[in-house]
Amino acid sequence: MTRVFNFSAGPATLPIDVLEQVRNDLLDWNGSGMSVMEMSHRGKEFVAIAEQATADLKSLLGVPDNYSILWMQGGATGQFSAIPMNLLRGGSTADYVVTGSWGKKAIKEAGRFCTANTAARPVDDVFTHVPAREQWNLDPNAAYVHYTPNETIEGVEFPEVPDVGDVPLVADFSSTFLSRPIDVERFGLIYAGAQKNLGPAGVTIVIVRNDLLGQALPQTPTVLDYQQIAAADSMLNTPPCFAWYVCGLVLQWIKARGGLPAMAERNARKAGKLYDYIDGSGYYRNPVRPSDRSWMNVPFTLPDAGLDAAFLAGAGEIGLSTLKGHRSVGGMRASLYNAMPEAGVDALIDYMKEFARTNG
Amino acid sequence: MTRVFNFSAGPATLPIDVLEQVRNDLLDWNGSGMSVMEMSHRGKEFVAIAEQATADLKSLLGVPDNYSILWMQGGATGQFSAIPMNLLRGGSTADYVVTGSWGKKAIKEAGRFCTANTAARPVDDVFTHVPAREQWNLDPNAAYVHYTPNETIEGVEFPEVPDVGDVPLVADFSSTFLSRPIDVERFGLIYAGAQKNLGPAGVTIVIVRNDLLGQALPQTPTVLDYQQIAAADSMLNTPPCFAWYVCGLVLQWIKARGGLPAMAERNARKAGKLYDYIDGSGYYRNPVRPSDRSWMNVPFTLPDAGLDAAFLAGAGEIGLSTLKGHRSVGGMRASLYNAMPEAGVDALIDYMKEFARTNG
Repeated sequence: MTRVFNFSAGPATLPIDVLEQVRNDLLDWNGSGMSVMEMSHRGKEFVAIAEQATADLKSLLGVPDNYSILWMQGGATGQFSAIPMNLLRGGSTADYVVTGSWGKKAIKEAGRFCTANTAARPVDDVFTHVPAREQWNLDPNAAYVHYTPNETIEGVEFPEVPDVGDVPLVADFSSTFLSRPIDVERFGLIYAGAQKNLGPAGVTIVIVRNDLLGQALPQTPTVLDYQQIAAADSMLNTPPCFAWYVCGLVLQWIKARGGLPAMAERNARKAGKLYDYIDGSGYYRNPVRPSDRSWMNVPFTLPDAGLDAAFLAGAGEIGLSTLKGHRSVGGMRASLYNAMPEAGVDALIDYMKEFARTNG
Repeated sequence: MTRVFNFSAGPATLPIDVLEQVRNDLLDWNGSGMSVMEMSHRGKEFVAIAEQATADLKSLLGVPDNYSILWMQGGATGQFSAIPMNLLRGGSTADYVVTGSWGKKAIKEAGRFCTANTAARPVDDVFTHVPAREQWNLDPNAAYVHYTPNETIEGVEFPEVPDVGDVPLVADFSSTFLSRPIDVERFGLIYAGAQKNLGPAGVTIVIVRNDLLGQALPQTPTVLDYQQIAAADSMLNTPPCFAWYVCGLVLQWIKARGGLPAMAERNARKAGKLYDYIDGSGYYRNPVRPSDRSWMNVPFTLPDAGLDAAFLAGAGEIGLSTLKGHRSVGGMRASLYNAMPEAGVDALIDYMKEFARTNG
C-alpha cells in the first residue's frame, strides 16, 4: 500500500493513526462483536462513544457551559438555512460579511428567510482580502452578523475575530475549525462541516449560546431546530453514528498531540513555508493579501494556465494528489489541514521547484 | 474476534463480506492511496463509486426512468418535513394513514406545514393491524397519501401496496427497504433511512416521480429541496461520501445474492420460522394480526415482564445482542434485516426454547 499526500479541500486527508484505529475496530469495536456502523445509537456502547467525542470537543475548544454542542447533518449549506430560521428571534434583518464563495452562498440562502444585508463585500467580488472593520456597514437592527473566518476556495482567512459589539456573531468555521484556538465566548454561534479537520463528511457541528435558542420560525423543519436537537442531546433521530465516532478519534488524536495550540503552531509553520516559497519563486503566485492568507487552503497559479495539466500530471505521478484549484478560480490549491504532515508540504515545495526549473 | 448476532432495529447488522471489504479498502481504496473518507466528492474516484451505487439501486428496485434517486441527509425525520414542503404543490391538505409510532411522528410534523388529515388510525393507537382499505377516509383534495409500509417499533407491515387512485402515494420504507421487490410505479415518492437494509446511518434515499418536482414551498431549505438536489445529482453540497460508498457495497452484495426476489424468499422464511415458534410456544406472544406481521421487526413479550432482564442477560452471554424492545412497547424485538443470517434466527429460537423450558 502506498499512501499519497492528499491536498483535497474536503473531504480531506485524515490522520493515518485514526484510519488504522478505524480499520482495527471495523468488525469488532472494543470486544462488542459489532462494528460501530451496526450499533444502536441508543445502546450503551455508542452513547459512550458519542459522549466522549462531545466532551473532547468541549475541552479542546474550551466551550463554556452556557453553550450547546450539536451534532447535525446537512453540511454548512443546511446551516445557511438553519441560521436565519433559528436566530432571527423576531427580527427581520441579518448582516453578512462576504469574503468569498461560501459567504456568497450563505447570504443568498439567508435572503430567502429575511433581509440579508451586505455589511461588507469587495468590489466586483475580487476576494483577495478581508475588508477593514471600520468600513463595514452594520445594521443596528440586525439579529446577528455572519461571516466566514476562512474561505476555502479563495484562501482568504480573517487574522482576528471581528468586534461587532453585542450583536451575536455567527461564523462558518468549516475549513478552519480546530486549526487553532478560538475564543468561543466571542461568538453567538459557530458551525463547521466535519470534512476538513474533524472527520468524514456527513456531520456538521454547531456550537450555540443557549440564550439564542427557542425562537425558531414556525416552519423550521425539526431536523434543523437547534432547541429540539439540543434538548435531545443530538439524538432527536438516528445521528450519523459512524462519522461521529471517526470524529471522536480525530479529536483524541488532536488532544494527544498538544491540542489546538500545537495545531496552530504547526499549521502556521506549514503554510508559512509554502507561502514563502511561492512569493520568492518568481514563478508561482498567490493573490491574497499576506495578512489575510489562509493557513488551511493555499491557492496558487502558474505563469501560464496552459501548464496546469502538466503540473497536475507530474504531481500525481509522485503521489501529490488533488491539487487542482476550484473551477471558479482555476490554478492550483493545496489544502494543508491538521492531518497533512509537514513532509507533504516539503514534498510539494520540492516538486514545485523542480517543475519551475524545467518549465521556467 | 467473536461477532455477535445483532438484532438491533437500526443502525443494524451489516453483511460481514461488506465489512471485510470496507476494512480492506480503509487506507487505500483501489490503489488510490486514499481512504474513501478522504476523497474529494468531485474527484473521479468518488464520482465513480457514487454513480455505481445509484445505478445498482436503480436496477435492483427497477426504478423507472421518470423517477429521480436522491441521496440525502437527515433521516426519515427530515423527510417528514421535506415531503409536505415539496409535494403540496399548491394544495393545503395531505392524507396520512397511521399504523404505528413512525406514522404518528410523520403526521405530527406534516401538521406544521399543511392540514394533515388522518385517513385511518386504529382506535386508541393500538397498533396491531393494518386498517382495511375500505375504511380509509381519503380527502379528494389531498396532495398525496402518506403511509408507513413497515412500522419498526410495533412490527406492523402492509401485506400489499394500497390502491389510492391517482393521488400520489408516499411511503416511508425505512425499515423494509430492499427486503423484497416493490413496484415503484405505484408510488409518487418512496423514502428510507439507510440504517436498516442499506448501510450506515447518515444517508436517506428518496425516489420521486419527476413530475412532482419543482413546486417546493418558498421557504424550503435548499438541502431539503428535491428539485435542486436532483438537478445536482445529489451533490448540491458535500454528500455523506463514506456512508454512500458502504451502501454501494451492500447493494452489490444484494445483487450477487440474487437481488430482491432472493432477499424476499429468505426474509419470509426467517420471519416465518420465528413467528411459528412464538405462536406455538405457549410462552412468548406477538400481538400483531398474522397477515400484517413484519418480516423485518418481530416484537414479542414474555409471560411476565419481570423475566425480561434475565432473558436479555442470558441472550447477551451467548452473543445474541440488542433484543430489548422499544421503550414505548416493552418486551423484546428481534430485527431480521437482510444481513441477519438464518443461523442467527436459529440461535435465537434455540435460546428462546431453552429459556422457556427453564423459566416456564
